[in-house]
Amino acid sequence: MLSCVNGAFSERWYQVAVTNGKQADRLEAEWGDIITPDKMADALKAKSYEAVTIVHNETSTGVENPLKELAAVVHDVSPNTLILVDAVSSMGGVKIETDAWGVDFILTSSQKCFAMPPGMSFAAVSDRALERAEKVENRGWYFDLLRLEKHRIKNSTPMTPTMSLIWALDVQLDKMLAEGLDNRFARHQAMAERVQSWAVEHGMEPLAPQGYRSKTVSTIKNLRGVDIAALNKFLLTKGMRLSNGYGDLKNKTFRIAHMGETKMHHVDELLEAFEAFMENM
Amino acid sequence: MLSCVNGAFSERWYQVAVTNGKQADRLEAEWGDIITPDKMADALKAKSYEAVTIVHNETSTGVENPLKELAAVVHDVSPNTLILVDAVSSMGGVKIETDAWGVDFILTSSQKCFAMPPGMSFAAVSDRALERAEKVENRGWYFDLLRLEKHRIKNSTPMTPTMSLIWALDVQLDKMLAEGLDNRFARHQAMAERVQSWAVEHGMEPLAPQGYRSKTVSTIKNLRGVDIAALNKFLLTKGMRLSNGYGDLKNKTFRIAHMGETKMHHVDELLEAFEAFMENM
Repeated sequence: MLSCVNGAFSERWYQVAVTNGKQADRLEAEWGDIITPDKMADALKAKSYEAVTIVHNETSTGVENPLKELAAVVHDVSPNTLILVDAVSSMGGVKIETDAWGVDFILTSSQKCFAMPPGMSFAAVSDRALERAEKVENRGWYFDLLRLEKHRIKNSTPMTPTMSLIWALDVQLDKMLAEGLDNRFARHQAMAERVQSWAVEHGMEPLAPQGYRSKTVSTIKNLRGVDIAALNKFLLTKGMRLSNGYGDLKNKTFRIAHMGETKMHHVDELLEAFEAFMENM
Repeated sequence: MLSCVNGAFSERWYQVAVTNGKQADRLEAEWGDIITPDKMADALKAKSYEAVTIVHNETSTGVENPLKELAAVVHDVSPNTLILVDAVSSMGGVKIETDAWGVDFILTSSQKCFAMPPGMSFAAVSDRALERAEKVENRGWYFDLLRLEKHRIKNSTPMTPTMSLIWALDVQLDKMLAEGLDNRFARHQAMAERVQSWAVEHGMEPLAPQGYRSKTVSTIKNLRGVDIAALNKFLLTKGMRLSNGYGDLKNKTFRIAHMGETKMHHVDELLEAFEAFMENM
């Protein structure tokens, strides 16, 4: 398989492949850059792969990889290659056209744009991925897609599921549908634009290139040399906090999440407090 | 590995082994019977096994396998064989001396004797099991004991955990410690004795042999020919229900759970309603 790696979570997916004994090559870009469709095309022309793994929204760098274009290249250059997508921090906040783009497997978790407690994962699987799964030996029990599908069809689960989160999901899906998906996606985009333009106005800039900036989490270069620990200490007095940069990006960047049930007035409140902190730096 | 199979959940563990590509032999007993230490000794003398799997408390049959005696036989006959135990429906309700008995891996889940919502699993692992894990190739990522242990030591988890259940666990452990473990175990035993002697008094009997009857769930032979569906319909009008027999034991047996936060007065209430139903049969 071919693992696209341009951040902490795509690196993790590569590790998942390797620790499961799969032969995996890395298609890399710098942290903060995207995986380009051209690079993907070159890699697929050079070697045959059963599957590619793509992290749609890199929570570590605030980069949204161009999933639609990457999927189109895979279908064009290597139509038998399965397209596996981690949409943990984007699904539910950003429009993803699973069928139209021809995604074979896409997963997310409950605690990001679904705004629920963590502890549950959701996935969509294509028919051809299920057919391919039949030929996989030693699929295991817990993560066997065919076993899960068999039970899904009869509205069941193979093992006792996390019931309290399923009830919470029922409530949250109603809320999401009441807001309307297009409204939800527009809200995420508006919050992203607000944070990212605010950063530029205050002498900083997003790590991701224009056009590929995440709508759910902004990773901002810390060009003003803000003491992130001190900032968080100040923010916590007001019941807020933001995330430091991930791994090597710690202190060089910081991250502002704007996803799930976060609304524009929350973003405004955070940015006002951030400004107040910088005025006293 | 050697999989002890005498019920639905030990059968499942065998399936887990096979679907993970492990070579597994079955050490079988009839559903309702125990795995005897003699049978275990014979199997281990006949062939060398890296591990045995034992379900301590078969939720399907109400049988408690003699774990202490089985573990002693393994240590005696084949000391290098790892002892892996499913204690899903007993841990927290029954005393299990993990270290004294030399158990290498034992797991449970949140929704049985811990009386929490489902969605979380707990395990204890011996040092030698962790050492053995180092030699296992393709351990995967999600279930890699060494990765979990590395994070446990720094009071962390490799992935975002199910936070709401962790908070619930914190509350529930306080409750369990306030009751006292010995009191908790005695309460489970008293409820089991109450249900099982009630069954005999009413012309029925437990499926499990004397001395090996579960303290957390009683599986009773339906010798009175009770219509279990009709019984449950009646019980539900009083806010209660019991479980029908599992798989082939459906209607031939029924099961009464007496675990977790179930108290003797709940058991009394259930049995009184059961009697009222039988009087009108």
